[in-house]
Amino acid sequence: MRVYNFAAGPSMLPLEVLESAQRDFLNYNNSGMSVTEMSHRSSYYDDIHKECISLIRELLNVGDNYDVLLLQGGASSQFEATPLNLLKKGRADYIVTGNFSNKAYTAAIKYGDIRLVASSKDANYTYIPKDLDIRSDIDYLHICHNNTIFGTRFTEIPKCSAPIVCDMSSSILSQEINVNDFGVIYAGAQKNLAPAGMTLVIVRRDLITDGLAICPTIMKWKTQSEAESLYNTPPAFTIYMAMLNLRHIKKNGGVKAVQVYNEEKAGLLYAFIDNSTFYTNKVVKEDRSMMNVPFVTPNGELDKKFVSEAATAGLVSLKGHRLAGGMRASIYNAMPREGVVKLINFMTEFEKNNKL
Amino acid sequence: MRVYNFAAGPSMLPLEVLESAQRDFLNYNNSGMSVTEMSHRSSYYDDIHKECISLIRELLNVGDNYDVLLLQGGASSQFEATPLNLLKKGRADYIVTGNFSNKAYTAAIKYGDIRLVASSKDANYTYIPKDLDIRSDIDYLHICHNNTIFGTRFTEIPKCSAPIVCDMSSSILSQEINVNDFGVIYAGAQKNLAPAGMTLVIVRRDLITDGLAICPTIMKWKTQSEAESLYNTPPAFTIYMAMLNLRHIKKNGGVKAVQVYNEEKAGLLYAFIDNSTFYTNKVVKEDRSMMNVPFVTPNGELDKKFVSEAATAGLVSLKGHRLAGGMRASIYNAMPREGVVKLINFMTEFEKNNKL
Repeated sequence: MRVYNFAAGPSMLPLEVLESAQRDFLNYNNSGMSVTEMSHRSSYYDDIHKECISLIRELLNVGDNYDVLLLQGGASSQFEATPLNLLKKGRADYIVTGNFSNKAYTAAIKYGDIRLVASSKDANYTYIPKDLDIRSDIDYLHICHNNTIFGTRFTEIPKCSAPIVCDMSSSILSQEINVNDFGVIYAGAQKNLAPAGMTLVIVRRDLITDGLAICPTIMKWKTQSEAESLYNTPPAFTIYMAMLNLRHIKKNGGVKAVQVYNEEKAGLLYAFIDNSTFYTNKVVKEDRSMMNVPFVTPNGELDKKFVSEAATAGLVSLKGHRLAGGMRASIYNAMPREGVVKLINFMTEFEKNNKL
Repeated sequence: MRVYNFAAGPSMLPLEVLESAQRDFLNYNNSGMSVTEMSHRSSYYDDIHKECISLIRELLNVGDNYDVLLLQGGASSQFEATPLNLLKKGRADYIVTGNFSNKAYTAAIKYGDIRLVASSKDANYTYIPKDLDIRSDIDYLHICHNNTIFGTRFTEIPKCSAPIVCDMSSSILSQEINVNDFGVIYAGAQKNLAPAGMTLVIVRRDLITDGLAICPTIMKWKTQSEAESLYNTPPAFTIYMAMLNLRHIKKNGGVKAVQVYNEEKAGLLYAFIDNSTFYTNKVVKEDRSMMNVPFVTPNGELDKKFVSEAATAGLVSLKGHRLAGGMRASIYNAMPREGVVKLINFMTEFEKNNKL
């Protein structure tokens, strides 16, 4: 009955998390109400809010010199919040490795001297640029850690004297990271953290200042930091779901164990594709994403057929993004190993039946 | 077991709505997945998104010359979105009738020639200013329809040649309105519409323009309008809950029937308070809110005792906002008549036991 959902986000959540939310949906912790109905000033919600932040700190090993904010608006809101909060000298550098880092770059241009350091657009974003001429006198360098659409990933974080701002929407909690490598990490929740509607921002405290005067109040990290992410009504149910998911990750061994599991899943799928003459992944091997695996068959007609027949077999949302074409298997934390194995078996069968 | 939750928002949702969401939580419409996991580009979600917008249009009688946007960020996001989208001449007038209209006013100041037309701060916001000297050459007039904290309401919409922008966070869907009286209506969802995490914006199409160049992309009504509120990942589960709630309102006779029910509930409570020498509501009678009823006992000690004993009796979140003190009964759409009757009975008993 339950399908394997390969969507790029929103995407699968652990069944255990969903069952827990369903069980308590009408009456959370004997409060006599649903989490969806709770005052964000109630002690019930306050416990959820604090536990969610505390679990993020613990699982990502976030030091006291960083603040953890739970906001609304999606990662897209941080495309503008970043320059609005960080520009002081008025200069920032961007590396564009896909659709969303390009949006971040474009959004920032209107606020200062924003420079494109490097882009992999010349090869349809199938690699991560390595040769970087980053300016020394900038407020920050912006990168996107994992590119959801094109299936690439920074396996090494660039060297830079200025703070690095990193969009980790599609890789947060999927592998161990060193938070100290970054000035700011932000991530939309809807891939590895929770349902859509929440944005995680981890920001080094010395970078929390007044920002530009034109910055909308709800985008001000300082305002949200001082209010402990309760400046306005938070997306309470989404934060509750994040808390359940974080508990689930902790119970299963933390981010280290998650990474091992993800490496195995991605390893299986890439090995199968590499051994195949029918399926191709166009990304430079060393830059491959562990979360999003784009691939194609020998032609567009077969790609279409693949997506349709896979859905019938219970493997859904495998269609690639329109900018990339073909297929894409997003295999986030909550995609079970069995889902990947089932996909590989389906791919094997499909190849047999459609060999040119 | 289920309490009567008088919180100012997030607040009660109809039990039928909660039960429906719980029943389908693991498997929506035989999709094999939860709404919390669905791609926002899937046909399952697309149906939810469109039905939600269509029900808002139907229930509020929104004409084709208005667009309906489902956004993130809370009503607070619209405090800045309003001037950023609407300022052309660079001038706007504000009426300040409480905490949130004051926030809206303060937020707008940084973007133009923003004038305070009238304020009821002189009497701790217990009335709605009537004598208004609105400028003729402004881009818009901003008002807050219902004041959650102080319990007042505009029973008549001011006359104004410029478009009126109205924050309806705590009154949307609680009474019939004429959308054509307004240029823009916005509302956070967490009182009468859905759980927290969604913001409804109804905007007259001729007011959807490029706006100020510094406007963040996700705050641009034009961008969201062109993308049918799918510019970035929407808060899908919250929109789904809104859809269920709108279906519930429609089934029960629409906004007209809701209004009759709300008038009865508020009528019962105000009549009881007016007949009492123990309880007082300080708001000018003609400006009373139908949604939020603040009241006090003869002293602060008794107020505290009231809130605590009421909670024990299953009447929760009756504490007034810290800016207003005392108690506040928020009796939104989903508060059953029985909840109000139970509150009145409790008030009667409490008075008997605590007569000075």
